[in-house]
Amino acid sequence: MALFPESLSNLIEQFQKLPTIGRKSAERLAMSIIEDDEKTVKDFAQSLIEVKEKINNCKVCGNLTEGQICSICKDISRDEESICIVEDVRNLIAIEKSHAYRGRYHVLGGLISPSDDMGPDQLNIDKLLDRINEGKIKEVILAISSTIEGETTSLFLTNLLAKRDIKITKLAQGIPVGSSLEYFDQLTLERALEDRREILD
Amino acid sequence: MALFPESLSNLIEQFQKLPTIGRKSAERLAMSIIEDDEKTVKDFAQSLIEVKEKINNCKVCGNLTEGQICSICKDISRDEESICIVEDVRNLIAIEKSHAYRGRYHVLGGLISPSDDMGPDQLNIDKLLDRINEGKIKEVILAISSTIEGETTSLFLTNLLAKRDIKITKLAQGIPVGSSLEYFDQLTLERALEDRREILD
Repeated sequence: MALFPESLSNLIEQFQKLPTIGRKSAERLAMSIIEDDEKTVKDFAQSLIEVKEKINNCKVCGNLTEGQICSICKDISRDEESICIVEDVRNLIAIEKSHAYRGRYHVLGGLISPSDDMGPDQLNIDKLLDRINEGKIKEVILAISSTIEGETTSLFLTNLLAKRDIKITKLAQGIPVGSSLEYFDQLTLERALEDRREILD
Repeated sequence: MALFPESLSNLIEQFQKLPTIGRKSAERLAMSIIEDDEKTVKDFAQSLIEVKEKINNCKVCGNLTEGQICSICKDISRDEESICIVEDVRNLIAIEKSHAYRGRYHVLGGLISPSDDMGPDQLNIDKLLDRINEGKIKEVILAISSTIEGETTSLFLTNLLAKRDIKITKLAQGIPVGSSLEYFDQLTLERALEDRREILD
């Protein structure tokens, strides 16, 4: 015999499709919906539909936006000589939250991964070249994870841009702030040593 | 400047209203909605609305149902001489999942709590008495948490039913299965000792 009425059981399944939501969490979330007032639930349903209808990718950089051009590309106060290349919007948001960067972005929409049949053609690279061809960009920052796919993509972009008169940089590698040395692998420690900085400059 | 477009920001807030979903999880869930296909998102929104429209409480026991009477109350194979009293539907489901009980339930819809202005009048007790007055019930099991509110409610129900010719029982207290003795408080160990069972009966 079914433990939950059909509509509730459906909702549990819908919640379970979300990332990191297991069966138990899905049950708890669905039960909480029953206890919410009608307006709250309708607003939630409406929000889901609206996000799907309104959100698309910025025609310039690939960031999320409701119009054609995202708020970062529109922001004239931001440095337009620097472009930070990221794998996806999640990474863009992580960097924005650090408040450490005031230039522009370019979202690749993935990384080169032969095992997943992802080649450079499937990435948002043509538009990157268009932007660089405009001639304003002086620095390209590769803010890409140092996984195998990330390193492959960084190498591809470095080769692609090598002959142009722009500075190509990548994020520093080392020990995360607040972490204990002992937990990091040999390669991380090696990089951290190689890239050591003089304290009194 | 806003980090997220408005509709996405709204959806993040909606997710954040759900229990145990913090800001970071809400952002991750909302981002996943953007990546879902349109049908998945529409089905999810529809499920939310349907649950709110269809689910109500069983007229007999207070369990969740889509009709008037829940599947447990309708199930003639279940023992109708035993009634298990629970605080809410979550607890009913927890007991059902154990597959250890084949009688009926009665959902109180809360516990007596003077500090929260919850008195016996606000609980689903009148219908419980109606059911007992029908004369079929032989045992009432109090499956109620042993918190202060739970103990108060159990005591109230015990007094209320004391003069009737029915057996009143409560869940056994002791050490949870698979747990180490050392982690439990004095009172739990005291109860576990008092209620000890003979192994070779």
